[in-house]
Amino acid sequence: MKTIQGGVTAPFGFTANGIASGIKKSGKKDLALIYSQTPAVAVGMFTTNIFKAAHIVFDKKQLKNGRAQAVIVNSGNANCVQGKDGLITAQKMARCTSQTLGINETDVLVASTGIIDQKLPVEKVERSVPLMVKNLSKLQGFAAAQAIMTTDTKPKQIAVTMKMGGSTVTIGAMAKGAGMIFPHLSFSGKKHATMLAFITTDAVIEHRALRKALKLAVDQSFNCITVDGQESTNDSVFVLANGLSGNRCIELNSKDFKLFCTAIDYVCLELAKMIIADAEGANKVIKITVKHAKTKEDAKRVANSVANSILLKAAVFGGNQNNGRIMAAMGSSGAQFNQSKVEIVPDSFRKKDIQITIDLKMGDYATTVYTSDLSVNYIRINAGYN
Amino acid sequence: MKTIQGGVTAPFGFTANGIASGIKKSGKKDLALIYSQTPAVAVGMFTTNIFKAAHIVFDKKQLKNGRAQAVIVNSGNANCVQGKDGLITAQKMARCTSQTLGINETDVLVASTGIIDQKLPVEKVERSVPLMVKNLSKLQGFAAAQAIMTTDTKPKQIAVTMKMGGSTVTIGAMAKGAGMIFPHLSFSGKKHATMLAFITTDAVIEHRALRKALKLAVDQSFNCITVDGQESTNDSVFVLANGLSGNRCIELNSKDFKLFCTAIDYVCLELAKMIIADAEGANKVIKITVKHAKTKEDAKRVANSVANSILLKAAVFGGNQNNGRIMAAMGSSGAQFNQSKVEIVPDSFRKKDIQITIDLKMGDYATTVYTSDLSVNYIRINAGYN
Repeated sequence: MKTIQGGVTAPFGFTANGIASGIKKSGKKDLALIYSQTPAVAVGMFTTNIFKAAHIVFDKKQLKNGRAQAVIVNSGNANCVQGKDGLITAQKMARCTSQTLGINETDVLVASTGIIDQKLPVEKVERSVPLMVKNLSKLQGFAAAQAIMTTDTKPKQIAVTMKMGGSTVTIGAMAKGAGMIFPHLSFSGKKHATMLAFITTDAVIEHRALRKALKLAVDQSFNCITVDGQESTNDSVFVLANGLSGNRCIELNSKDFKLFCTAIDYVCLELAKMIIADAEGANKVIKITVKHAKTKEDAKRVANSVANSILLKAAVFGGNQNNGRIMAAMGSSGAQFNQSKVEIVPDSFRKKDIQITIDLKMGDYATTVYTSDLSVNYIRINAGYN
Repeated sequence: MKTIQGGVTAPFGFTANGIASGIKKSGKKDLALIYSQTPAVAVGMFTTNIFKAAHIVFDKKQLKNGRAQAVIVNSGNANCVQGKDGLITAQKMARCTSQTLGINETDVLVASTGIIDQKLPVEKVERSVPLMVKNLSKLQGFAAAQAIMTTDTKPKQIAVTMKMGGSTVTIGAMAKGAGMIFPHLSFSGKKHATMLAFITTDAVIEHRALRKALKLAVDQSFNCITVDGQESTNDSVFVLANGLSGNRCIELNSKDFKLFCTAIDYVCLELAKMIIADAEGANKVIKITVKHAKTKEDAKRVANSVANSILLKAAVFGGNQNNGRIMAAMGSSGAQFNQSKVEIVPDSFRKKDIQITIDLKMGDYATTVYTSDLSVNYIRINAGYN
């Protein structure tokens, strides 16, 4: 496996585009399209927030056939809490995309990110889709990655290739994050968040194998990051596999499957780390590893409790060592351990990338969670007067 | 019941003092003493954090006889995570106090607040106790309230009197808060936090009635506030009832008990609200009421999830209305509700005191939680360069 230039358009048969449709008042790009020249095997994972953006309800229906050929994404508006109007908006976005591309309406996925609780001006999308489709190209993958940004300061994309039998399989991806980041993605979609990731691949792969590979990758990447402990209403991750690399079909738990998993794990973890490094107001990445927890849940409880401690994150921002704040967060996490036996090894808070290792000395479970420092700028951005 | 001037020295037979012993490098007051001229019925509730300050382990032992006559409190150092040394320090604080006052060592309670994970210079306490005892007085209640402050900007005290039969019963109290505030106080003390409250009364009251009255009051006051979602290692609330008012003994669930409960409820809630109003960097108080939850736990889950949303609190700081952040926090709380049926009535975020009412329309349970906005100054204070 090796990393190559590019993002969602790196695999065979994928083109993309990103333009400004007028949803964002700033005039910045706010509409992206990913297109595969043939229908692709498709899976999606979504937020578990009870409040769910309309596109999530819509996409779950669209994904029932396990297939997709295009994804239309807007930023600047989450299309959330709009009742039936929200669903109609998502459907209109899919319809104009399918009609312009000449593909099945059931093969179009929709995603939105931005302000919750405002009506999405869908006519702006409808007006912009023809031009966006006209200029779809391999070269516009970067423009698509720009168009899905909200408070992100830079686009996030990655691509990798690997040899599989006599074929070369490529995976490309783009993501956005920045704030309201504490994803708990699942297939059933019981919650929601403002991180989006789109993964494309030219691999030939069984639907159930793709589903399993995505779950494994998401559980150790996007589901292990937190900026502010706030699970959004829109969090979604999609994979489209169009099969154009012509490899032998990747079957569940085969050797090829393991190779594919290694690659998609890497892609998701790199994107997740890019989200943390570019979190709202963030200057530092904090990696928290919990070892020897009694249960998997206990490992997660301790790691998330420490990662979501705004006192710890403010201390890291200030470069002001304060291990007591790690302890306070651990002790109120609900996990079991003995206060006189645990071992805490924190890097200096003055460093740019900080590793905190916590050994609970209780059992065999471990986990790693990534977070950022909490800065004065995070508050400024979210107080609305940046 | 009526509010009167003063704090812990308002009831008959209580004196206090507060001085600078040198624990705080700033030279500000850092040592307080409360003294009752006769041994008092005493109860205490403590943090449930696994990491517990040494004084909590010590006090639980001291309270086994249900009695206390003095409380010695230091600020500037939490005396936490010091192993056996921490316990020895707490014991030394109690011993020098009992010897100087000429009372039983088992009748002295100890409390600490301040930096976690540093050695408390107990010799400074021992050197200062004789002078502090010498100048104990009714007039020094305010000095005691000052001496327990850490990042608090003002002392917090309150006193009320009530007629009970032919007697006048008085309750006085002082508290400190400011940061690491999300108390979960219990008698067993499974966790811990940096809020301290000391309540004195001259009521004659059964031990079990005092215990019940304190639990009822704490559960609807200190256990309903959050500044930063961080449960400290030191949170403690004490009540000393010396019986000098001569009222007929207050028995559990009697008419007098209810009257006493009303008063102690009021005292605790007012102190809790003072803590929120003076939270680190806070400019606003946010009152969150959840109605018609399916269970009591669901009501708490929703209220605490919203109250601990740093995105919401930053929006309130900026006066920037954003109801989507209320919804996102509700939807990831784990509570059951239907997103299309709930009703959310928020005050304008531009107001100084903000009420947010959330009607889940699921059942019969309700709760109210108080929190503050999250300001740039909170981050500055906790980044250590205020």
